[in-house]
Amino acid sequence: MRFELPSIAPIHDAALAQRLQQRLDRKTKPQGSLGRLESLVLQLGLIQRSEAPKLDRPQMLVFAGDHGLVARGVSAFPSDVTWQMVENFLAGGAAVSVLARQHGLALTVVDAGVAHDFAPRAGLVDRKVARGTADALAGPAMSEAQCQQALAAGMAVVHELPGNAVLLGEMGIGNSSSAALLLARLSGQPIDACVGRGTGLDDAGLARKRAVLAQVLERHAGATQPLDALAAFGGFEIAMLAGAALQAAAERRVVVVDGFIASAAVLVATRLAPALAGYCVLAHRSAEPGHALMVGELGGEPLLDLGLRLGEGSGAALAWPLLDSAVRVLAEMASFESAGVSDRSES
Amino acid sequence: MRFELPSIAPIHDAALAQRLQQRLDRKTKPQGSLGRLESLVLQLGLIQRSEAPKLDRPQMLVFAGDHGLVARGVSAFPSDVTWQMVENFLAGGAAVSVLARQHGLALTVVDAGVAHDFAPRAGLVDRKVARGTADALAGPAMSEAQCQQALAAGMAVVHELPGNAVLLGEMGIGNSSSAALLLARLSGQPIDACVGRGTGLDDAGLARKRAVLAQVLERHAGATQPLDALAAFGGFEIAMLAGAALQAAAERRVVVVDGFIASAAVLVATRLAPALAGYCVLAHRSAEPGHALMVGELGGEPLLDLGLRLGEGSGAALAWPLLDSAVRVLAEMASFESAGVSDRSES
Repeated sequence: MRFELPSIAPIHDAALAQRLQQRLDRKTKPQGSLGRLESLVLQLGLIQRSEAPKLDRPQMLVFAGDHGLVARGVSAFPSDVTWQMVENFLAGGAAVSVLARQHGLALTVVDAGVAHDFAPRAGLVDRKVARGTADALAGPAMSEAQCQQALAAGMAVVHELPGNAVLLGEMGIGNSSSAALLLARLSGQPIDACVGRGTGLDDAGLARKRAVLAQVLERHAGATQPLDALAAFGGFEIAMLAGAALQAAAERRVVVVDGFIASAAVLVATRLAPALAGYCVLAHRSAEPGHALMVGELGGEPLLDLGLRLGEGSGAALAWPLLDSAVRVLAEMASFESAGVSDRSES
Repeated sequence: MRFELPSIAPIHDAALAQRLQQRLDRKTKPQGSLGRLESLVLQLGLIQRSEAPKLDRPQMLVFAGDHGLVARGVSAFPSDVTWQMVENFLAGGAAVSVLARQHGLALTVVDAGVAHDFAPRAGLVDRKVARGTADALAGPAMSEAQCQQALAAGMAVVHELPGNAVLLGEMGIGNSSSAALLLARLSGQPIDACVGRGTGLDDAGLARKRAVLAQVLERHAGATQPLDALAAFGGFEIAMLAGAALQAAAERRVVVVDGFIASAAVLVATRLAPALAGYCVLAHRSAEPGHALMVGELGGEPLLDLGLRLGEGSGAALAWPLLDSAVRVLAEMASFESAGVSDRSES
């Protein structure tokens, strides 16, 4: 399966933006007093090319994959946790399962490349490229063909789902290393600023992770283009997330981006198609230190700042009711005229 | 009706806090990775003296009152907007109406002292002390007896409602002036740092508001005790909010505090009963500049930071699903043992 970059139209539409702002400004509240919710409803209207945006059957997508680099000691948890957590997602016991249930988000787990054989079942989509990526210190994490396959698979997963909103999450022991490497390469920031403790490395573990990632970065010094960097650093779940984001935007769905790793995928994707950024809502500021740099690269203002560093899509799920609120405020609030409320005094 | 300060027990319980933390730490996630949600679930457990906190029939309370000081030109909107917005709350067209509906919050509007006669109806509680406070530049906004009556009424309103959570909001053209005055007097901060644009004053309006409030502060230089300051600066809705917060804490309900004005009420109340602070969840960081000082006085970490400056309880409603999430995470997430997920590696 070969990846073809889909066509993504910029959301920009000055006339529609003005009409949306006028509708907001007639609602019974001081102008601008709903803050970030107001810019959010404008964005949703522009994405949907509508003065009355609606949210329909939101899809939480959790892409899972393993990482060859884990053998180098870059994570506090063993690789087996990836498949064990996939089982936990499907059984309903993980944070993202609980939060998706709370907010009525359909949860789909995608095996992008877990080093484990899953029994088929509802809620699990098999798009396995391989049983984990290769060790990125020994060579590229994936071949060019694997990278293309993963991107195309991410697109296909979204294309087959209903609704007009996707929430992007992930699971993959070791994937904060891939995300840090992608950030360092695509932003030009020093690797040490991009690396954090992931699931909870101690000081010695963090020092080791930094040393390993510096070597990996050096090993693939020539991988400067987005897709080359993606293939070099992995992982399969990140490539599928990138494909999923691109397809969602091409279909004018809103893309709710979880934390550090999902943002890395979107960073790659926006380098391929800058118009994607207009479709993305950054769910939260992650406690993973590199995420602040990531937000700077992507632009935009995360909705939540709760010190989260779990991934899975948990932050995206927590942010979801704010999107719902934004849409409801526009749809359901009375205007000064309809409610018979006096607008500002002349004084 | 005479106000009697209810007895509020500190939530502190080191043994229970440790048991709650241990339960959280066995959930299938890196320790601490749910950030602010984890401290929130600890707080809820301590409030309810339970290892399994639950949220039951949350009550959104919007106290409304008018302010004599509005005649001095301290607000961008006329006083009539107070009663018009009460009608809007009851008709379901205000922001807080929409958001309460979204999150299943029972909405009660309390006429604390609006300068208008309302027809009785469902959802409206008549606790009117007077038709607005007096002009605080001419004398105290309310008499000591009125202040006591308002505090006692706030307590009674909460006592009569079911559930174990209250969300505190307000409506009152001019009440950001009362809040700024209370903050300045009780914190000792300069009045200019406590005053903001409220519903949207322009530069000239802001300068006028600052000048008026400086005079009011000077006029009541002797009102240094919390209840004296409350009577001097008003308003009825702020006094009822303070009473409501105290009663809720005395009954071990969680108190979700909206923005600048609700926080001012809680500031007064915590000066009377410092243990109240343990029961309060600050919903958001308001865009009203004095709110940062208020948060500093109250302690605690607001959940949201969305540039809101609407009041009504809108920020409390927006924060509500995070409390629900915190409780669900503890109740519904699997543990490492129950899910068969490996804990940290030894490496």
